Amino acid sequence: MKADKMIPTVVIVGAGFGGLRVARALRRAPVQVVLVDRNNYHLFQPLLYQVATAGLEPEEIAKPARAVLRGQKNFDFRMIEVTRVDFAAKRLDTTAGPIAYDFLVLAPGGETNFFGLASLQRHGLGLKDIPDAITIRNHVLTCFEQAMLEPDAEKRRALLTFIVVGGGPTGVEMAGALSELIRLVLVKDYPRLNIKDVRILLLEATDKLLPALPERLREAAGKTLWRKYVEVRFGATVADFDGRQAHLKSGEIIPAQTVIWAAGVRAAPLTATLGLAPARQGRIPVEPTLQLAGHPEVFIIGDAAYREQDGEPLPMVAPVAIQMGESVARNIARQLRGQPLEPFRYHDQGTLATIGRNAAVAHVFGLQLSGFPAWVMWLVVHIIQLIGFRNKLFVLLNWAWDYFFYERAARLITRD
Amino acid sequence: MKADKMIPTVVIVGAGFGGLRVARALRRAPVQVVLVDRNNYHLFQPLLYQVATAGLEPEEIAKPARAVLRGQKNFDFRMIEVTRVDFAAKRLDTTAGPIAYDFLVLAPGGETNFFGLASLQRHGLGLKDIPDAITIRNHVLTCFEQAMLEPDAEKRRALLTFIVVGGGPTGVEMAGALSELIRLVLVKDYPRLNIKDVRILLLEATDKLLPALPERLREAAGKTLWRKYVEVRFGATVADFDGRQAHLKSGEIIPAQTVIWAAGVRAAPLTATLGLAPARQGRIPVEPTLQLAGHPEVFIIGDAAYREQDGEPLPMVAPVAIQMGESVARNIARQLRGQPLEPFRYHDQGTLATIGRNAAVAHVFGLQLSGFPAWVMWLVVHIIQLIGFRNKLFVLLNWAWDYFFYERAARLITRD
Repeated sequence: MKADKMIPTVVIVGAGFGGLRVARALRRAPVQVVLVDRNNYHLFQPLLYQVATAGLEPEEIAKPARAVLRGQKNFDFRMIEVTRVDFAAKRLDTTAGPIAYDFLVLAPGGETNFFGLASLQRHGLGLKDIPDAITIRNHVLTCFEQAMLEPDAEKRRALLTFIVVGGGPTGVEMAGALSELIRLVLVKDYPRLNIKDVRILLLEATDKLLPALPERLREAAGKTLWRKYVEVRFGATVADFDGRQAHLKSGEIIPAQTVIWAAGVRAAPLTATLGLAPARQGRIPVEPTLQLAGHPEVFIIGDAAYREQDGEPLPMVAPVAIQMGESVARNIARQLRGQPLEPFRYHDQGTLATIGRNAAVAHVFGLQLSGFPAWVMWLVVHIIQLIGFRNKLFVLLNWAWDYFFYERAARLITRD
Repeated sequence: MKADKMIPTVVIVGAGFGGLRVARALRRAPVQVVLVDRNNYHLFQPLLYQVATAGLEPEEIAKPARAVLRGQKNFDFRMIEVTRVDFAAKRLDTTAGPIAYDFLVLAPGGETNFFGLASLQRHGLGLKDIPDAITIRNHVLTCFEQAMLEPDAEKRRALLTFIVVGGGPTGVEMAGALSELIRLVLVKDYPRLNIKDVRILLLEATDKLLPALPERLREAAGKTLWRKYVEVRFGATVADFDGRQAHLKSGEIIPAQTVIWAAGVRAAPLTATLGLAPARQGRIPVEPTLQLAGHPEVFIIGDAAYREQDGEPLPMVAPVAIQMGESVARNIARQLRGQPLEPFRYHDQGTLATIGRNAAVAHVFGLQLSGFPAWVMWLVVHIIQLIGFRNKLFVLLNWAWDYFFYERAARLITRD
């Protein structure tokens, strides 16, 4: 387990977008790369809401980390959990013993932020990993099965009321996909279902959906959701949810069995164990080079890193993590050659969000698109970014099938 | 929920091969069909071992019961568990209240039979449903991840020793698929793995694999497994397994972390709650017409029914359940028309078992095939029998991909 004295060891914590990019970009560098993650796979999180709405199978948007980097000679993977970082000794404590490093890249990602609301943490459904997505899928389908058995009309309506909290990309895409799952597919499965009993609400605390987009596209997104019978509500904040009723801050009470929580993300719990003072959302402030102050051999990237640019904190999204990963790999190579490091600068390539069949909004390359053209662009961009030709092929086939046959293949209730 | 007095209600318990066939065959009969199952899907069990060995995704071999019978006017599905049958009152007690029936078809299927061995029930891995298959997949892949971290050579070899118990079709197919998963795919994922540390054992208590087949094919199956480095052991009975060591009846001790139990099946636990005297394996004896003695309106089919033919009990396999389902549907229609019922007779169409790439044994239509021709026949038969064109397409694509690229896509460790 000891690194060769001649070849420095770069340990990367996390096989998400950022960590994987660092590992790949170091493939020709004179280093040994060790990637650790508590899962054995890389997950393409932007399509997780499609697993939650029975459109895709989890295996189609995930790929084993060992398979992704199989051809890379200087690469090693370990499925372990990091319990502590000893920055002074340059050592990680893990569930499988200590690992020494010469360079450390922390890319542990983010988790659902319930903002300390204990009742929502208990009864609300987050959407950050595969078990989350399967839980939502099982829960939504089970609500329909139970509604079919429920003679009490009020209880039945509560079973068929689905609240999505948060008007960012995840909430918007989730609400749109849920509406299509129910109104295009489940109506065929449940001929005795009265569609008037179904409610889907999208609750946003501010007065804006998709705040990163220009106003025209924000309005288009809201209208498209409304046309899909999603009740889009602004200035609506959920204060409490006991699994039966959602209490809003306004005093409004909504009987519902489902609250999907897409209202916030914070840095992964590992950041809280580092003994460092976090900034907002538990993120750790880093130098312009993404180094940890006082530890030039330690880099933090992605959702776990806090960095402002032009007076605004960088968003917790995949493109930031990917670009940070590329920057860190370059800077590690520079450091080994004794060259000065370059500061990181994020180049925003735009925002895309889909709202269902033929409907999306896109703000990319200075273009503002909505409707069908944006939807086509969304499809192309996501297929290109999926890792592995097999995943691309199977996701595309699934999408084509669902598009033409108004289907969702994966509507199994699988939890034992 | 009350049935129309004019139209008799046929309640079918179980959406397996038998139950589904009854529901379909009654589509034009003057009855209301109610199918109940604790899962919302029909599972194609013969391919479950491929989910366990990361070759297929669970969604590809299962289909929601509502989707299978979507077009059928006289059909209703309820996802509930039956807790009791009141034969006198013609009523089922369920987790969602009582259901009255005019005809009842019990098709609850089978479960893994550990023959009362408590330690194997606790530490052994059965293979009867989707959670079982995912558990085996997660367990096998986790053993490899842990072996990579294990400095102790003895512990590492125990992590890489996989014992399959039972030389029937499930055990043979499982052992063959496991060998190919490890020797063709995982060796690429784990370049530091010493393949000599890996052992796969197939333990059979008698001196025969696949006892339903003629001797030539039995021998061919055993030889093919051996060539795939599966240690096929006859007269070997596992007496105890604590999760670290398997103790055989002979006194032999095999250090191993994995025992996959494919040594037996018994009737589903529902049969034990009926107040009826079971025959072997918890199966309920039925009349030649598959009726329950004294209850002409109750039929029992599939793994839960006990019936002998030509002095031998009918095997617990899908073709028996399917043919029983067809017979029962015909007999219900005859009973409604006041015609006498016809006794059931099983027509054995043969046996097929695959052992890996290009290798299978088949005894069908009087033909005895082995090797490549049997393998092609196995592929064709299984693709035809899969329910739904989408499942056929995706399974075929997966198989083609794995065949040409020596891959297994679904090797994720997904349990949370």
